[in-house]
Amino acid sequence: MRILIIGGVAGGMSAATRLRRLNEDAEIIILEKGPYVSFANCGLPYYVAGEIEERSKLLVQTPESLQARFNLDVRPESEAIAINAQTKEVTVKNDKEEYTLVYDKLILSPGAKPLIPPIDGIKEAENIFTLRSVPDVDAISTYIDNHKPKKAVVIGAGFIGLEMAESLVQRGLEVTIVEKAPHVLPPLDEEMAAYIAKELHDKGVEIYTELAASAFEESGKVVVLENGEKLESDLTLLSVGVKPNTDVALTADIETGFRGGIVVDDHYETNKKDIYAVGDAIVVKQQINNQDTMIALASPANRQGRQVADIISGLDRFNKGSIGTAIVRVFDQVAASTGLNEMQLKSSGEQYDVIHVQGKSHAGYYPNAGTVLLKLLFNPASGKIYGAQAVGTDGIDKRIDILATAIKAGLTIQDLPELEFTYAPPFGSAKDPVNMAGYAALNIIEGVSESIQWHELEEKQSDGHILLDVRNESELIANGQLPNALNIPLDSLRERISEIPKDQPVIVSCHSGLRSYIAERLLKQNGYKVKNLDGAFALYSTIRPERIIK
Amino acid sequence: MRILIIGGVAGGMSAATRLRRLNEDAEIIILEKGPYVSFANCGLPYYVAGEIEERSKLLVQTPESLQARFNLDVRPESEAIAINAQTKEVTVKNDKEEYTLVYDKLILSPGAKPLIPPIDGIKEAENIFTLRSVPDVDAISTYIDNHKPKKAVVIGAGFIGLEMAESLVQRGLEVTIVEKAPHVLPPLDEEMAAYIAKELHDKGVEIYTELAASAFEESGKVVVLENGEKLESDLTLLSVGVKPNTDVALTADIETGFRGGIVVDDHYETNKKDIYAVGDAIVVKQQINNQDTMIALASPANRQGRQVADIISGLDRFNKGSIGTAIVRVFDQVAASTGLNEMQLKSSGEQYDVIHVQGKSHAGYYPNAGTVLLKLLFNPASGKIYGAQAVGTDGIDKRIDILATAIKAGLTIQDLPELEFTYAPPFGSAKDPVNMAGYAALNIIEGVSESIQWHELEEKQSDGHILLDVRNESELIANGQLPNALNIPLDSLRERISEIPKDQPVIVSCHSGLRSYIAERLLKQNGYKVKNLDGAFALYSTIRPERIIK
Repeated sequence: MRILIIGGVAGGMSAATRLRRLNEDAEIIILEKGPYVSFANCGLPYYVAGEIEERSKLLVQTPESLQARFNLDVRPESEAIAINAQTKEVTVKNDKEEYTLVYDKLILSPGAKPLIPPIDGIKEAENIFTLRSVPDVDAISTYIDNHKPKKAVVIGAGFIGLEMAESLVQRGLEVTIVEKAPHVLPPLDEEMAAYIAKELHDKGVEIYTELAASAFEESGKVVVLENGEKLESDLTLLSVGVKPNTDVALTADIETGFRGGIVVDDHYETNKKDIYAVGDAIVVKQQINNQDTMIALASPANRQGRQVADIISGLDRFNKGSIGTAIVRVFDQVAASTGLNEMQLKSSGEQYDVIHVQGKSHAGYYPNAGTVLLKLLFNPASGKIYGAQAVGTDGIDKRIDILATAIKAGLTIQDLPELEFTYAPPFGSAKDPVNMAGYAALNIIEGVSESIQWHELEEKQSDGHILLDVRNESELIANGQLPNALNIPLDSLRERISEIPKDQPVIVSCHSGLRSYIAERLLKQNGYKVKNLDGAFALYSTIRPERIIK
Repeated sequence: MRILIIGGVAGGMSAATRLRRLNEDAEIIILEKGPYVSFANCGLPYYVAGEIEERSKLLVQTPESLQARFNLDVRPESEAIAINAQTKEVTVKNDKEEYTLVYDKLILSPGAKPLIPPIDGIKEAENIFTLRSVPDVDAISTYIDNHKPKKAVVIGAGFIGLEMAESLVQRGLEVTIVEKAPHVLPPLDEEMAAYIAKELHDKGVEIYTELAASAFEESGKVVVLENGEKLESDLTLLSVGVKPNTDVALTADIETGFRGGIVVDDHYETNKKDIYAVGDAIVVKQQINNQDTMIALASPANRQGRQVADIISGLDRFNKGSIGTAIVRVFDQVAASTGLNEMQLKSSGEQYDVIHVQGKSHAGYYPNAGTVLLKLLFNPASGKIYGAQAVGTDGIDKRIDILATAIKAGLTIQDLPELEFTYAPPFGSAKDPVNMAGYAALNIIEGVSESIQWHELEEKQSDGHILLDVRNESELIANGQLPNALNIPLDSLRERISEIPKDQPVIVSCHSGLRSYIAERLLKQNGYKVKNLDGAFALYSTIRPERIIK
């Protein structure tokens, strides 16, 4: 049996090595368009930054090592340019020749390629790069070494854009980010992304949002924005998204669907018999709402590669779909998410509720505990968890990994308080932020607590709600005041309760939301109509700094 | 309504504050025998070490702060000495008086107290301490400051014993550990605990196992072991376990059960109406096998405290049981576990299988990736996960927290490969050790791979199994050789396969288990009868260093 694999990274290589372990006698040929297989995609920005010092670290495997260990016939710089599904042949092109290979089974793992919008002047520019491969990173590094650029513009503030913004700052460049969406890090919701925007700003990165580049002038030295503003750029990184690499699939009339992705059945088979596809190029089910989606992440790609190898080898597997879990470090802050965000929930018409909790990465009484801001999106009727997002300096990966596991397992917010985590002072707390998020969501569902979101405050205040801030005087001085707030510190609230007019609805806030919830309960039981400002001052002052009085 | 709470730490204080939030008008009185409430139990060893520098950090709340914020009547140094369940009265004793308090609801959260075995000379000794409270830690610190002890003996190598061993080394003492069980850290299995024993040894701590202290001589300056050996000790820490503190419960004929713990129904009510109990003193269900157990951990205690407050306030809650998740840092190593270990599985008669996988805390190509050794215990028929243990320098908490979530959710080993975790080079890998553990277990269940455990190797070799080591020559030189092993590096195995006699069963090993599994598959498909040495050289050389040839 000859198995042909198109694409030698992530999904393709996982399939190849698993196939070998299960089928010692099969002939396995991997065609890779680029010069390298099985390289460390996700490490590329860290190599630009110099954090990964040796280029060889990026090259996890070579054709020679894969031959020796797995008896794989790996052919780099070999592009599959056509498939004939009837004759079961693939046409391959390398720098010397074109030839055809017959196959018994064909696996497509072509990945995705960077979107390059047809902006005026883009073709004439000599300083515009994308980042997807080792040659890309070589080009950027060589350009930096040779041209000593001073100013960089990063167009697109997704994961790669932000990692590269940091990397370029590490290399000494002055960086400006341009993002078409209303905020950086569009996969996260606005108020969570605001923490990353603040970090970028604090580290000297300038940010333009709701703007795209409309032209490149002077061989790319000037980036013209939609509003006419011009940015100088010695080096421009274009990271505005990716699209599935379906060129060769389309030569065989393989069906594509959502956003041009390859359509496969739950055994990864395309509409053409014996042709399978995995990885960034395929349409998958978002497990949470069962809708079609595209997820360009290494973890699902690797799993799919292994599963398709199992299926071809006769083991019982099927593609259950993906939820999408991702993380990014931006200087000293980390942001991560799993599942659906608010925009996705709105567009799929789900009824959802939101809570934010602020906890510590480990016990507060042990040194160096970082703040973990955790957002949970859930169904207020069933408690189903739709998604989670977190930002902070430490322990962000752990909380999102736990919640990704909870979502995959179908746990509800009612289950989160039951989870038992490792607790010793350097590692956690007796009540982890994940437990706290469960408690907070349960309070909402059971009517113990009601909250408003940050974007509702201004309107509520105009509508006659009293804003009660229960922080202490010293905090107001140190961190600033909320606009038009009445201040009564929580510990004086019982004695000073009569200062609050009883005929007006009240919104309570403190610093992180813990004290305001206690105040809310106290006031509610004294007959007040109260809601809690979810996320409290800490969140509000990050997303609405202009409303804070210092 | 008056609610009386006996015990002002963890469960008791969680109950009190939640009760206040739900019942602004209730009278809530907390009786605490010791001088402090709501203190940081788990931080005590770190204060001895000096890692937590300020003593005030241990005192999370005070009676005054709890009065101001929660209107709680907190009475420290007030011991409840008798309960009359008929008249609903509690007799309280403080340094001035005895008095009675009537209650509507009574919550017992008395915790556990250190076991103090009746060893000869223990009463006359002046240098023996236990560690459970702030006064305990004060006594140890004062003793160290005043007596400048040089040698310490720690009796009992559980979590607290090991944390204290490290703390005493940090304070400059020469430490010897004495443990009655066959290995340190008895909650973990032998081969996992071996990594911690090695770390202790590397840091200069001497260890005696399978030995108890049989006497203390010279006012405690000499610790006599069961085998007659004598250890000098300037300071002895006794940490041989805890027992439920049921003194006051027994005055009201409250039912106790398993290991003397207080028996409660699933609403935490004892056999006496309106008397509830939570925390370390109660018998709980081990959720995995539904058996009675005692779990002395802060996380379940806090949850139970909150739940009993909810139940008393009319909310729908019940005690679903606990699984037991714990972690300990011992110098530069971290060990953690969740669920059942091998001893517990054997004693409850469960059929189980075991795998060990060795992965990285984050992408291997990014600097400072640590090794994560992960052990999974599972049912080979159903895939049910019984427990997990991990050791390493970094990322141990995360993996065990994920697996604790998986166990609580009823996930099987078949589900572990499906989990999607955050992946960027500083945080994880495209295939996390948790995913890898799932793949490895699935290979066992599906017969793709067979393994033997470290304790079976010697016997198998005597029985005529060939031990094939597929590491490279350089590794053999650097790390040592397995006894009587045939060495063929994996990458030469296909060409040198004829060197392996086909009529004898083969056991394969490499360094971490990845290459040996590839070799196993290769040999199996060439007609060999092969099993994999689970955990490979890395594990074997840690638990059986005396068999390694250097």
